[in-house]
Amino acid sequence: MSKEITARAEDYSKWYNDLVLKGGLADYSAVRGCMVIKPYGFALWEGMRDVLDRMFKETGHQNAYFPLFIPKSFLSKEASHVEGFAKECAVVTHYRLKNDPNGGGVIVDPEAKLEEELIVRPTSETIIWNTYKDWIQSYRDLPLLINQWANVVRWEMRTRLFLRTAEFLWQEGHTAHATAEEAIAETKQMLEVYADFAENYMAVPVVRGVKSPAERFAGAVDTYCIEALMQDGKALQAGTSHFLGQNFAKAFEVQFSNKENKLDYVWATSWGVSTRLIGALIMAHSDDDGLILPPRIAPLQVVIVPIYKGEEQKAKIDEKVHAIMADLKKAGIRVKYDDSDNARPGWKFAEYEMKGVPVRIALGARDLENNVAEVARRDTKEKSSLSLDGLAERIGALLEEIQQQMFNKAKTYRDEHITPANTMEEFEHLLDTKGGFIAAHWDGTTETEEEIKERTKATIRCIPLNNKQEAGTCILTGKPSTQRVLFARAY
Amino acid sequence: MSKEITARAEDYSKWYNDLVLKGGLADYSAVRGCMVIKPYGFALWEGMRDVLDRMFKETGHQNAYFPLFIPKSFLSKEASHVEGFAKECAVVTHYRLKNDPNGGGVIVDPEAKLEEELIVRPTSETIIWNTYKDWIQSYRDLPLLINQWANVVRWEMRTRLFLRTAEFLWQEGHTAHATAEEAIAETKQMLEVYADFAENYMAVPVVRGVKSPAERFAGAVDTYCIEALMQDGKALQAGTSHFLGQNFAKAFEVQFSNKENKLDYVWATSWGVSTRLIGALIMAHSDDDGLILPPRIAPLQVVIVPIYKGEEQKAKIDEKVHAIMADLKKAGIRVKYDDSDNARPGWKFAEYEMKGVPVRIALGARDLENNVAEVARRDTKEKSSLSLDGLAERIGALLEEIQQQMFNKAKTYRDEHITPANTMEEFEHLLDTKGGFIAAHWDGTTETEEEIKERTKATIRCIPLNNKQEAGTCILTGKPSTQRVLFARAY
Repeated sequence: MSKEITARAEDYSKWYNDLVLKGGLADYSAVRGCMVIKPYGFALWEGMRDVLDRMFKETGHQNAYFPLFIPKSFLSKEASHVEGFAKECAVVTHYRLKNDPNGGGVIVDPEAKLEEELIVRPTSETIIWNTYKDWIQSYRDLPLLINQWANVVRWEMRTRLFLRTAEFLWQEGHTAHATAEEAIAETKQMLEVYADFAENYMAVPVVRGVKSPAERFAGAVDTYCIEALMQDGKALQAGTSHFLGQNFAKAFEVQFSNKENKLDYVWATSWGVSTRLIGALIMAHSDDDGLILPPRIAPLQVVIVPIYKGEEQKAKIDEKVHAIMADLKKAGIRVKYDDSDNARPGWKFAEYEMKGVPVRIALGARDLENNVAEVARRDTKEKSSLSLDGLAERIGALLEEIQQQMFNKAKTYRDEHITPANTMEEFEHLLDTKGGFIAAHWDGTTETEEEIKERTKATIRCIPLNNKQEAGTCILTGKPSTQRVLFARAY
Repeated sequence: MSKEITARAEDYSKWYNDLVLKGGLADYSAVRGCMVIKPYGFALWEGMRDVLDRMFKETGHQNAYFPLFIPKSFLSKEASHVEGFAKECAVVTHYRLKNDPNGGGVIVDPEAKLEEELIVRPTSETIIWNTYKDWIQSYRDLPLLINQWANVVRWEMRTRLFLRTAEFLWQEGHTAHATAEEAIAETKQMLEVYADFAENYMAVPVVRGVKSPAERFAGAVDTYCIEALMQDGKALQAGTSHFLGQNFAKAFEVQFSNKENKLDYVWATSWGVSTRLIGALIMAHSDDDGLILPPRIAPLQVVIVPIYKGEEQKAKIDEKVHAIMADLKKAGIRVKYDDSDNARPGWKFAEYEMKGVPVRIALGARDLENNVAEVARRDTKEKSSLSLDGLAERIGALLEEIQQQMFNKAKTYRDEHITPANTMEEFEHLLDTKGGFIAAHWDGTTETEEEIKERTKATIRCIPLNNKQEAGTCILTGKPSTQRVLFARAY
C-alpha cells in the first residue's frame, strides 16, 4: 500500500479524513474552518456541477451572479432569516490596511471604517430579492428562474472537510412566481432534480421529504429535503428546496401587477446543494482501501497500467494501449494511461484504488500474446480477463453495471436501516445498536422533537413525501399521531 | 426602437453604460461598487470561461479552489505585494451579529472579534504559496500547474460596470517550477493563450508586451500583458501573465530538493483574466444600436423571427422553422426561435440588435412560397435573401465570415491607431486629437514615466515583445533610448 488508511471499524471519522486527505480531494488551510479543494476533488465537483447545471438549464433556469456582500440591514429585514444566520456571519467592517505609524506592521486603517457593515453572504435570498424588486413589475416578468454558482460563508465552530466548512461552494436557485401553486410546484420539481442527481449520478439513494418546523430553513414556509444514509448509520441532508411563500417579497417589497391588474406580492422558492455532497459520496460508498466513485461522476473512469520488463515490451504495450485509449475515448470514456516509470504496478494499483477509479486495466506482455487484458473493478474488487476485441464496448457496459450495483448496494443497506420503533426504549436501543433511520410516531410539536434530540442526539430528518397515514401514539408523550416520521443521528 | 441608447459621439461613457444595462448584461447592486451579472451577461461569461478553461486544460493545468480569506499577516509577507493591495482590501474583523441589548437592532457582536483580521482575497498568491509549501518537497512535485476560477475583491473608489468593480470574477493561474527558464516559458505560454483567446474568440486584436517597472504586478519580476484598443482611442489591459521569480517562494519558505539533491527556492508564475474582458468586448465592437458580439462566444448566434398574419400562416412557418432549427443545431449553432406573440417583429429586431445576436433570420409567408429567408447580419447590417436549401451550411459559413470581419475591422482600426511621436508636443497633440497607442522613445526611468502620466494621463501600456530596436531620444528628457514603447490613455 502506498498510504495507510484507518479502518472504518477502528475510527470511522478518521477513516473519512484519511480518504479526503490521502485521496487528494482536499486539504486543510491556514484559515480556520476553510479548506483547499485539491485538483482531484475539484475535478469531481466540476463533474457534479456540470450535470446539475445541465439539469437546471433543462428545467428552464438561467445562471446569474449576485454580490458576495450583503448590507447588514438587508439580513435583518426578514425576521426569522436573520435569527437563523446572525450567529455565524463573517463581517466586513473596514476597506483598507495601512502601515502602523507606531511600527506595529500592517494594521487595519481605523479611518477606513464602512458606514454600514457588510456580511459575507451565508445565502443570498436578501440581496437577490432586493434586486428582484427592480426586475419584477408585472406577471409578464414571471416566473423568474435563476440559479447562482457561488461561494458562501457560515462561521461554523466545528468544521469537517466537505461536510461542514466555514466557506463552501454551492449553487442556490432563487425563483419568483405569480402564484403559490406555481412556486410549490417549482419547489417540488427541484427536489426531484436533486433526488434524480443523487440516485442516478451519485448512486446514493435518498428519502424525499419535508422538514419539521424546527428544521426549516430560516425564512421558509416549507423546506423539502433529500436525506441520505451513510455507512455508519448516520443520516446526511443532501439537498434542500424551500417554498418561501411571500416572506421575502414582503420583506423587500416585491409586488407585481397580476393578470387582473391588481398588485400582489411575489411567491418565492430557493434551493441548494453544496460541496457537502462530496462528503456524502465518500461516506456512502467507500471502503477501507480508499474511495469508491460511481462511474458517471468519477473524474477518471478507467486507468490503464502497463506491466513490462524492458523497453521492447513497453513499446509493444504502448502501441496496443494507444489503440485501446482511442476506442475508449471514442466511446466517451474518461481514461488515463499511467506509464510513468517512477512507481511499480503494485504501487499504482493501490494508488488508483485509493482514488476510487472505477475500472483498472492491467496489460502485460503475456496478456498481449493472448489478446486479453486484466480488468479489475474497484467496487467489488473482482478481476476478469477480457478479450482485447470489443474491449471498449465491454468496458462501457461494465461501467454502467458498476453504477447500477453501487446504487443497489447502497439502497439495500439504506432499506435495511429504516426501522420502526414504538417506544422510547426501543428507539434509543435501535439508535445505539443499529443506527439508520428510525420510523416513529411523533406528536407534531417542536417541544417533543427537542426533548428527543436532547436525550438521544437524533433529529427528525424528514416527514417522507406520500407518507403512509396510520394511527399511533408519540413515542415520547404518548399523544395521538397520524404518521411515522424518520428520525436519525445526522451529519 | 425598444430602448434608447446614447450615441457614442454624444457621450461614449453613457453609451457604454446603456449597452451594459439595456443589453441585459449587468445591473448596479445595493452594495457600493459591486454589480449583478444578469443572465445574458453571465451566459456570455460562461461561454468565455468554457473556452479558456479548455485552453488551460489543454496546456496541462488543473483547477483547484483556495480559501476566500487571507490572514492579514500573509499579505504582509511579500513586501511589494502588500504595498500594492493594502489600500483596497475588504477586511473581516468579526464573525457574529447579535441583537443590540439597547434596542439598536442587529449589531456586530463585539465579543466575536477575530484574533487576526482576514482579508477578502484581492488575488491569491499568498494563500496559495502558503499551501504549496506543503505540496512541494522535491523536483518530482514540479511543475505544479493550477488554475482557480473565483471571485476577488478590490475596494476601488471609482467603479464602472465590468471594467472596474469592487468584486469581480476571474481566473488566476498559479504555477510552480524548478527553474527560472521553465517559469518564464510558462509565463509566455499563458500570454499566448490569452492573445489567442482575445483575437480568435473575442475578435479583439491585442499587442503582446511587457510592462514597465511602474506598471508591474505587486510582487512580480516581470509582468507580461495583452493590450487592446477601444473605439474611443483608449487602451485596455485585457490580461496579464506574471513571472514572479522566487519572490513568493522566499516569502513563504517554499523550497524543493532539485535533481542534484540540493535545496532551492521554487520559481513561480501567476496569470489572470477577469469579467473586465466583457467590457473590452463591448467597447471594441459595438455600435449605437447596441452590442455586436462575435459569433464564437455569442450566447445566441442566430435568432429566427416569424412574420405572419393569422394562425394558419404561423403554423406553416412554425413547421419550416423547426426543420431549420434542427439543421442549425445539428451544425452546432446556438439558435433561438422567438415566436412570442407579445411583441411585433420590428420590436424584436431592435431587441436582438441591442443584444448583439450575430445573425437574424426573418421568415414570412411570402418567403416560404419562394423558399427563401431574409438573413440580416448584426455587424454590417447587410441583409440578403438566402435559399432555404442548404441554409444551415450558409449560416455556418456566414458566422465564420462575421467572426473574421469583426477581427479584421478591429485590427484595421487598431493598426491605424498606433502612431509614432517624436516630441512631447506631437505626443500631446496626438493624444488629444486621435488617441490610440503612441509609439515614443522613453529614457527607461520611472520618474519620466510618471511625469508624462501627470502631464498627459497617458501611461506606458507595454514594451511590445520582439520590439524593433532603434536609436532615439526620450520625448520628455531627450536622453538616449533604444526603442519606442507604447503609450496610451487607458481604462
